[in-house]
Amino acid sequence: MSSQAARHPRDAYRAFRAIPTRWMDNDVYAHVNNVVYYSYFDTVVNGYLLDKGVLDFGLSAVVGLVVETSCRYFEPVAFPDMVHAGLRVANVGRSSVRYEIGLFRNDDMQAAAQGHFVHVYVDRMQRRPMVVPDRMRAALAELASPAV
Amino acid sequence: MSSQAARHPRDAYRAFRAIPTRWMDNDVYAHVNNVVYYSYFDTVVNGYLLDKGVLDFGLSAVVGLVVETSCRYFEPVAFPDMVHAGLRVANVGRSSVRYEIGLFRNDDMQAAAQGHFVHVYVDRMQRRPMVVPDRMRAALAELASPAV
Amino acid sequence: MSSQAARHPRDAYRAFRAIPTRWMDNDVYAHVNNVVYYSYFDTVVNGYLLDKGVLDFGLSAVVGLVVETSCRYFEPVAFPDMVHAGLRVANVGRSSVRYEIGLFRNDDMQAAAQGHFVHVYVDRMQRRPMVVPDRMRAALAELASPAV
Amino acid sequence: MSSQAARHPRDAYRAFRAIPTRWMDNDVYAHVNNVVYYSYFDTVVNGYLLDKGVLDFGLSAVVGLVVETSCRYFEPVAFPDMVHAGLRVANVGRSSVRYEIGLFRNDDMQAAAQGHFVHVYVDRMQRRPMVVPDRMRAALAELASPAV
Repeated sequence: MSSQAARHPRDAYRAFRAIPTRWMDNDVYAHVNNVVYYSYFDTVVNGYLLDKGVLDFGLSAVVGLVVETSCRYFEPVAFPDMVHAGLRVANVGRSSVRYEIGLFRNDDMQAAAQGHFVHVYVDRMQRRPMVVPDRMRAALAELASPAV
Repeated sequence: MSSQAARHPRDAYRAFRAIPTRWMDNDVYAHVNNVVYYSYFDTVVNGYLLDKGVLDFGLSAVVGLVVETSCRYFEPVAFPDMVHAGLRVANVGRSSVRYEIGLFRNDDMQAAAQGHFVHVYVDRMQRRPMVVPDRMRAALAELASPAV
Repeated sequence: MSSQAARHPRDAYRAFRAIPTRWMDNDVYAHVNNVVYYSYFDTVVNGYLLDKGVLDFGLSAVVGLVVETSCRYFEPVAFPDMVHAGLRVANVGRSSVRYEIGLFRNDDMQAAAQGHFVHVYVDRMQRRPMVVPDRMRAALAELASPAV
Repeated sequence: MSSQAARHPRDAYRAFRAIPTRWMDNDVYAHVNNVVYYSYFDTVVNGYLLDKGVLDFGLSAVVGLVVETSCRYFEPVAFPDMVHAGLRVANVGRSSVRYEIGLFRNDDMQAAAQGHFVHVYVDRMQRRPMVVPDRMRAALAELASPAV
């Protein structure tokens, strides 16, 4: 059903984070449960922003609200596999960013799963959309998708 | 960004399951984390199939593999809210089924989030797609989307 | 190994919360993973405090830090079982509370698992222990363990 | 309350596994939720057994059932911290093993949390306790607690 979708190679992504699987990621079918892939997604996105110093979830005025996510699953992953999560940015709007993520199993060169994740940045108190700050835009520019 | 998407009313769905939120569903922003919504999705799908007696994950020859999921988030949900997960089937193919899910917060009449979930049914041993069994088709027919 | 421990009956507890299992609670052995039991524990504790209006995790000056937990597992639980979490208070100190929890599967009269959970209440900003407020003491008195 | 407990140094443990925290490990208080520590526990235990080739959760005749766990929490851990999980074996019985785990935050030399985890090994089909196999005993001997 998703066989028509082109699986991405690693060089389709701009930054990577190694995310080891955990025992309880596996479900009754002995593979990582479909839900858990999304925890890899928000770990790679928020981890990148924290590493770049443009997100401080305890203090910063800016909070990222997730408004849309999706994932296509091509090959199973299972504990104790290592997941290499690739990240790129497909689009930066006024207050929103569309991230795309590919998950690579161990040394595999084609994504085991890939999807997207849309953040809207809002001010912490009012939860109203705010313009993506310049420092964040600079950090996101490094993730610009090769094809975009 | 997802504001253009039409939020579904409850009567767009055919079956419901009450899923109370849990303390740890909430993340640092004091709302249910985006990942957790997908655990509500596969709980309502698999719960329906188990209730109908057409899935027995310990023994049955048929296993549902998830090949694609997505979610749009409209309004936050937070512990201790009750989630009412609505379920319908948009399409039944030869070996795959597209489920659509709406999540309703407490007594809200419009979905707080909605998305889809595609299962491919495979035989347990070979993990090759198999024709959706007649008994499962009958159970799925009760979930036929009103608009389809 | 834990067979010597006496399994508690339902009337050993003072308040109950129904917590339906979820699909992804099950692990590769098709039973609820040992980790997930603790999410039932902090759901019943924090849920009770929220219901009583003595904890408001977004605003209140009081925050409950968990300093110690334990669980003994007697019988497996599995999705789609319903868990009935029983709660009682064994001890209220100056700034800490020892909760005890029993988890009952469906209609079972003996606990499938039981354990404890110690909260220290601190002020949100300084994270220093504070005296358990009177309103919270009143709410906790209703949970006083029958044997204590 | 748990301040009397002696926090363990790293050399109290025999084997280590690096477990990066994930975004959703954090709860509303912006620290790793108490439940998640136990997912680090069963990851380090089962990961060790899988690495040593003495556990194959898909096929092996031996299954590890968890009968008892506990944890004391000394210092908070938060995403994006790295957790170094230390493992040792305190006791090997006829069919059960008592593991002890210390969790170290980043470069900290004292445990942020420590606890125990008791496995009973059973045969997959009957779920009856079986004698810990010799190959597993040999792997566990390498984890013998220094003090025991």
